[in-house]
Amino acid sequence: MPHDAKPAPEAVRERGRAGAAHKGQQTRATILDAALSLASSMGIEGLSLGALAEVTGMSKSGVFAHFGSREELQISVIREYHERFEEEVFRPAIQQPRGMPRLRALFDRWIARVATEIDSGCIYISGAVEFDDRPGPVRDALAGMVLMWHGALNRAIQQAVDLGHLRPDTDAMQMLFEIHGLILSLHHDARFLRTPGAIDRAHTGFERVIQYYTLDAARPSPGQAAPQAASSGVLQTS
Amino acid sequence: MPHDAKPAPEAVRERGRAGAAHKGQQTRATILDAALSLASSMGIEGLSLGALAEVTGMSKSGVFAHFGSREELQISVIREYHERFEEEVFRPAIQQPRGMPRLRALFDRWIARVATEIDSGCIYISGAVEFDDRPGPVRDALAGMVLMWHGALNRAIQQAVDLGHLRPDTDAMQMLFEIHGLILSLHHDARFLRTPGAIDRAHTGFERVIQYYTLDAARPSPGQAAPQAASSGVLQTS
Repeated sequence: MPHDAKPAPEAVRERGRAGAAHKGQQTRATILDAALSLASSMGIEGLSLGALAEVTGMSKSGVFAHFGSREELQISVIREYHERFEEEVFRPAIQQPRGMPRLRALFDRWIARVATEIDSGCIYISGAVEFDDRPGPVRDALAGMVLMWHGALNRAIQQAVDLGHLRPDTDAMQMLFEIHGLILSLHHDARFLRTPGAIDRAHTGFERVIQYYTLDAARPSPGQAAPQAASSGVLQTS
Repeated sequence: MPHDAKPAPEAVRERGRAGAAHKGQQTRATILDAALSLASSMGIEGLSLGALAEVTGMSKSGVFAHFGSREELQISVIREYHERFEEEVFRPAIQQPRGMPRLRALFDRWIARVATEIDSGCIYISGAVEFDDRPGPVRDALAGMVLMWHGALNRAIQQAVDLGHLRPDTDAMQMLFEIHGLILSLHHDARFLRTPGAIDRAHTGFERVIQYYTLDAARPSPGQAAPQAASSGVLQTS
């Protein structure tokens, strides 16, 4: 722009608004970042505009201007957590081919994520306990995110079935229930009991689950005669 | 006692003391009962002498006289919970013969217990999340009780191995990790997500775990040639 040309007042205002919006987004991101740390250690219920103002060095009204209410802040933190979870676990994993490679990548990255959270805590897992008897929008937001993640895993299992990587009679919900249990056990043992070896146990458990849902592919369907190898089975409910 | 005989003053004082002690125990039991309900819904950290006074209709100093401190109250609640857990789950189960019958009884009763707690919450499970980053005597008491229970399950698994009910190479800690995961998954899905069918899934998962640790009894040890049936195994870590 020539040195003697002045920008039109409208353009200045536009740029000013854009700059303010950008700064606002940055501040919001800074607050969210602090809120995530706070929620990991204190729980989502431990989040308050006051505590957050203290941590960020902002005024309480400054924090309030960005989130409006404690509930809105809590829901924003859950959404932010979910986005980071998707970024670290979901998106890289779905780059893998459908079927077992993708399912394995999803679980491996999930374990890796929980492993990095052994010191800080997982908002999904602790939040589930915090909000299991507190109905309302925060619980709904949290349950919605968890169900979205379960849905993604469910699809990955179903694709592995459709591609013949897993037994055709695999109950995806059952398999998910078992896999999720390994993650919860890992979080419990590593974070609460501080038992060594929990990460290895989760991996070993996953291989066992996979083995079960593939190895028995030749299992007879009901009505067919059982082959010798399956005659000692003790699976009484299925 | 003849109507003209008066009891010796010492005996009266004795009986008075015994009566007061009995009444004291009853009051303590009443407070503990209320404290357990409160801790189930509000969490162990939600326990306070004030809240408890309100629920029981006692004075705060009256509650204080029985427990001395909030921490002592919290630890007493954990002990009381543990005793009830033992009463309902552990003691009846160890009446069963050692090996699979006992292990099965322990797990069945554990599931039944968690199932009755779907509405109230399990202090072990929620307490683990509440106290995973709060070191101190309350966390230690809670972890101690959980480890005691895990120890009992560990012994039951080991006995089932020793009796030949489970594969000789069964890793009891690994099996416990997987079984505990089923319980945690049940608590999560039934209580937080309100997904139907979680109890059945926990039972089905348990049968699968049992099947794995028994069915493969004839699995070759490392170095031996794998029989045909095991050649498609995908167990990559073990």
